[in-house]
Amino acid sequence: MRSASTFNPPTRILLGPGPSGAHPRVLRAMTAPILGHLDPEFLRIMDECNDMLRRVMGTENRITLATPGTGTSGMEAAVMNLVEPGDKVVIGSCGYFGDRIVQMAERAGGVVTRVTSAWGSPTDVAGVEAAVKAAGNVKLVGIVHAETSTGVQTPVEPFAKIAHEAGALLLVDCVTSLGGVPVTVDAWSADAVYSGTQKCLSAPPGMAPLTLSPDAWDAVKAREVPCNSWYLDLSLIEAYWDERRAYHHTAPISMVYALHEALALVLDEGLEVRWARHEQNGRALQAGLEGMGLVLHADEGYRLPVLTTVRIPEGVNDAEVRGALLKRHSIEIGGGLGDLRAKVWRLGLMGESSNPGNVLLALSSLGKILREQGFKADIGGGISAAAAGLEGA
Amino acid sequence: MRSASTFNPPTRILLGPGPSGAHPRVLRAMTAPILGHLDPEFLRIMDECNDMLRRVMGTENRITLATPGTGTSGMEAAVMNLVEPGDKVVIGSCGYFGDRIVQMAERAGGVVTRVTSAWGSPTDVAGVEAAVKAAGNVKLVGIVHAETSTGVQTPVEPFAKIAHEAGALLLVDCVTSLGGVPVTVDAWSADAVYSGTQKCLSAPPGMAPLTLSPDAWDAVKAREVPCNSWYLDLSLIEAYWDERRAYHHTAPISMVYALHEALALVLDEGLEVRWARHEQNGRALQAGLEGMGLVLHADEGYRLPVLTTVRIPEGVNDAEVRGALLKRHSIEIGGGLGDLRAKVWRLGLMGESSNPGNVLLALSSLGKILREQGFKADIGGGISAAAAGLEGA
Repeated sequence: MRSASTFNPPTRILLGPGPSGAHPRVLRAMTAPILGHLDPEFLRIMDECNDMLRRVMGTENRITLATPGTGTSGMEAAVMNLVEPGDKVVIGSCGYFGDRIVQMAERAGGVVTRVTSAWGSPTDVAGVEAAVKAAGNVKLVGIVHAETSTGVQTPVEPFAKIAHEAGALLLVDCVTSLGGVPVTVDAWSADAVYSGTQKCLSAPPGMAPLTLSPDAWDAVKAREVPCNSWYLDLSLIEAYWDERRAYHHTAPISMVYALHEALALVLDEGLEVRWARHEQNGRALQAGLEGMGLVLHADEGYRLPVLTTVRIPEGVNDAEVRGALLKRHSIEIGGGLGDLRAKVWRLGLMGESSNPGNVLLALSSLGKILREQGFKADIGGGISAAAAGLEGA
Repeated sequence: MRSASTFNPPTRILLGPGPSGAHPRVLRAMTAPILGHLDPEFLRIMDECNDMLRRVMGTENRITLATPGTGTSGMEAAVMNLVEPGDKVVIGSCGYFGDRIVQMAERAGGVVTRVTSAWGSPTDVAGVEAAVKAAGNVKLVGIVHAETSTGVQTPVEPFAKIAHEAGALLLVDCVTSLGGVPVTVDAWSADAVYSGTQKCLSAPPGMAPLTLSPDAWDAVKAREVPCNSWYLDLSLIEAYWDERRAYHHTAPISMVYALHEALALVLDEGLEVRWARHEQNGRALQAGLEGMGLVLHADEGYRLPVLTTVRIPEGVNDAEVRGALLKRHSIEIGGGLGDLRAKVWRLGLMGESSNPGNVLLALSSLGKILREQGFKADIGGGISAAAAGLEGA
């Protein structure tokens, strides 16, 4: 029969800011038969996800679950549930996603102070400390651990200290870091941490791991007005994830399967080994890009291994380069977001996508296209620099 | 290698209120390689989803998309985007999901009049008309086309007339009807209609088809305060679905694949043929249940073919019966929700699950277990009555 479907997605090498490629085991898991969302066998799978999420997030928080939406649903759940109208909130923003937290906190009715850093630098510790002191009685301090728009990693510990000394909770966006660079929720003393499935966990987009400390959960339970959102009201979602199993929404069954298998893969590999793999491949790519004569955008010492921003050389056409990479090499890299539009490219090496072959392929393909664009990329120098970093891989 | 995964979901026959079983083509579609959410090939797949959604929903509305969450995300998107603080809203509720709309409209700041009908009857036309007149200056009238908690179908047309004569918009919940019973958005003159993927469309749960009339879209654009939700702000989501392709969230790629294939299957079968299939199997099941000596709960003339509520006979243990069906026959049926807890069972025949074999199997298995529980089910009578209705199937 002639079908209405013309469904035939091509195979891409996903080296952008996410989604990353998925492991065949994850794709296969999604073909398992659909179970009901209250089936004891499905609830067992959810319980296993809980346990694995705690191990992958480095926490013993009872409230550890995945919200039924993409990474942004985790951000919205964390912000909307913790911020009540009139609450004082300080957000340290050094990029697009920090700004997004500000927007959400404002929609939740929060009185928000934004402490802005340059897009390429980490969040400003002294600035946030001063803002927290100036505001007084702050309920929530928020930062982005791995800023997907700039490729910058902000160390979390100083902000935990600032927040807790002021009696505030600390929210940390780990969308791009979880599963790729160390995320240690309890060691950090972070209170609200969320991520996405489609970055370093290498599952398809569609769920957002989220964990709340006992203090954060107390704050949710102590709300005087209900959360703005019904769909992402954590009091309701938690009642489904815990032993009450109270119906709230029909869980995205196949996505839970994918998450379960992705988490099992992370634990099979081992967190330390996985972090080291991401570190090695990311640093090799960065050495290679510099070896070709390109300039990395993020401040040295704060560069994420899983997401690299590199400046677009003068005279080179952003869209043409990305188009050629996609069309001729089937490689996806990301363009700049917000203030960095047409100024940087974003090269991700996340989850399954983070491997030595992709490092070399990215450098060679990008170098070739850059030369066509008139930029004299030193392809040999770049590949050599990268390969040196990949020794022992 | 010993894996951390113990992933092995059993095969169930899903005859509850959803999710329903998925077609192998849908499961297979999800194993396609992940594409970036801005990849031209992925955008083409989204465009095809748009087009197919319009055909399946019976609309030419430009604003036709799927929100990145389960069915409830569609409800939240419709309600939160259309209701502003202070807006007058009238909701005709005849069950659990009507009440849920009320809760959401209240969280959106709406001044809500709820017109309640018995759980088993359709929404009260005269009551809603009176409430709309009494309130004056109503912005939104909301009803549930197919009430999943009661198995009742409420005819839409009278409410469109009431709403539009009062200058209000009409919102219709079609979570359980789309793809199983006629949903004809433009013919109804409905303004905001949403559904879920996991019922009669027979894809896994995880997305919510949604369409807005030009009038409803004007209301969204004319908001004075932003939508409570950032994640489900339709102004932002629409900017990604339309030709601007502005980044808002990372689309749930594999779920979009599933939706695409599920919609293609609906169109391959043909809407009329599909509706007739659901009608025939549903009526056969209902005849069979009555033939066994059971009592249907929903008012005659308003019974959904895709979801049947049947009263639990006196002396029969709800949990034991459902447990035995699941354990011994691998059949899932639903228990009662809210006011109907432990009073009814909910038997769904949706999408792939709606076939003659499942009708006969459900009757035979349920009949056998009921007899063990002391209820003298006339299994032969039930099967005969159902088989008569299945002639020609």
